[in-house]
Amino acid sequence: MTNPHSSDLRRSPVTVLGLGPMGVALAGSLLAKGHAVTIWNRTPSKGDGLVAGGARRAATVAEAVSQSPLTLVCLNDYATTHEILDPAAEALSGRVLVNLGSGTPAEARSAAAWAAGHDVAYLDGAIMVPPPLVGRPDAVFLYSGSPGVFDPHRETLASLGDPRHLGADPGLAVLHNAALLDLMYATMNGFLHATAMVASAGVSAVEFADLAVNWFMPTVIDATLIAQAPSLDKGDYPGDLGTMEMNANALEHITRTSVEQGIHAGQPRLMRRIAERAIAEGHGGENYLAVFEIFKKPEPAE
Amino acid sequence: MTNPHSSDLRRSPVTVLGLGPMGVALAGSLLAKGHAVTIWNRTPSKGDGLVAGGARRAATVAEAVSQSPLTLVCLNDYATTHEILDPAAEALSGRVLVNLGSGTPAEARSAAAWAAGHDVAYLDGAIMVPPPLVGRPDAVFLYSGSPGVFDPHRETLASLGDPRHLGADPGLAVLHNAALLDLMYATMNGFLHATAMVASAGVSAVEFADLAVNWFMPTVIDATLIAQAPSLDKGDYPGDLGTMEMNANALEHITRTSVEQGIHAGQPRLMRRIAERAIAEGHGGENYLAVFEIFKKPEPAE
Repeated sequence: MTNPHSSDLRRSPVTVLGLGPMGVALAGSLLAKGHAVTIWNRTPSKGDGLVAGGARRAATVAEAVSQSPLTLVCLNDYATTHEILDPAAEALSGRVLVNLGSGTPAEARSAAAWAAGHDVAYLDGAIMVPPPLVGRPDAVFLYSGSPGVFDPHRETLASLGDPRHLGADPGLAVLHNAALLDLMYATMNGFLHATAMVASAGVSAVEFADLAVNWFMPTVIDATLIAQAPSLDKGDYPGDLGTMEMNANALEHITRTSVEQGIHAGQPRLMRRIAERAIAEGHGGENYLAVFEIFKKPEPAE
Repeated sequence: MTNPHSSDLRRSPVTVLGLGPMGVALAGSLLAKGHAVTIWNRTPSKGDGLVAGGARRAATVAEAVSQSPLTLVCLNDYATTHEILDPAAEALSGRVLVNLGSGTPAEARSAAAWAAGHDVAYLDGAIMVPPPLVGRPDAVFLYSGSPGVFDPHRETLASLGDPRHLGADPGLAVLHNAALLDLMYATMNGFLHATAMVASAGVSAVEFADLAVNWFMPTVIDATLIAQAPSLDKGDYPGDLGTMEMNANALEHITRTSVEQGIHAGQPRLMRRIAERAIAEGHGGENYLAVFEIFKKPEPAE
């Protein structure tokens, strides 16, 4: 006799705390992959759909975490996470806690220290996709913390997406999350500003996106960044194919063009000032990547 | 009897004015493709290598332009271009001038007006590759100006790379050039700042580039920009999947993380201020792309 749920028995039980849109997506994906899922939320009704789909609802956090070797917590901030977990510290002892809420690296390290103090194995994580994409095999989830905690649970975490372990420092996942979002906003702002520039002459965003995103970004920008990354690690910025002085002139030209076209000029102006700072610090004859040296330090007080 | 240079006869003669590294690359590529090439430079010796390769050196600009139906000029700025071409205006009359020097859209339109006043057919252009890549079939060259001037010379211009005609407004080529460089600098700065952020925790640029450029940029950022471009043209920014308020919070978080990690925070801080400006102008419940509306206007005076 075939039991349609027989695969459930081979999947490790998981507890999910916090049922905002992302928590619901996490629990739903685990249920779909055949895990026994226990849920808890401050407002229990947020879990009604999951219960209908087979999840067990726990009355308290302590009861919830005691049902599974692994607990995922996905709350808005670390303060709320602490507030909810403190009363359940004893029940969590000897188990694994994976924090998928957002915070700073210092907050992640402090949560790891709290866990260590209560004999709780801890991983910090960051989810790089929106809720509708959770569960797809290519949905990237970043984790950091002890590899000895991560490795035995890699298969369970793979039910959420593609788990990537970044290192033992628990701050690495949220730090990478902030860095990738930083890159995303800078790139989007660059695209939006460049599109505003051509829009000032009546060019459509669709037309410009085809040239900029389908051609220029992959063939020129991405290829340059990959090729130059080793130089950043070495701090080696030879200026034989173009100097910071030349790039500062180009940024001045872009700033003037923005003003001439009647659009916002704050972003190219800031980039020009950063290039000028690099020149003032002796990088004028090096290539543009020496801006990395400026970014690695706090900016001088105004 | 086979003449190894017989193909030369089918290629249109071209004159190249200005023999900096880019002018030399242009003339060299034309020679390699079998065009008869006439050159002129203020310092004639810059053309010695080209003459050895088969180019004819003219003694004056007027003599140079009279050798070919099409003249390419590649000088540092529009002021120098005017100074050199003014005495040759009569010789250029009835011929085609393609200006590949860099300038602003207003400078390009003013050069087009000068040409029209002397019965010279005019195209403005922008070269999107460095000199060593000139002549490759995928080297992008942007052109703007009358299609009636561009179309008959498309095949000759294809000897330099992939010629793309952007429209009749002669300012479009240099405007696209500035916009693409604007996007390039913003993206590079975003990458360099994000790399500085993870470097503050000991992560190498090579490791981060693999995650950021090989995965995050193409799958998340590029795909989003292509998908959203039609909304920019419509000015339609529904906030149902995420609002400007949420994005301003994320930018505040990135700014705080930068400060916490001891790196430069000027760039995320400016992006947060731009998002706050969008909120102040009523875009708080719309999605992040509404920043486009802020970029399309000059920034308010400080």
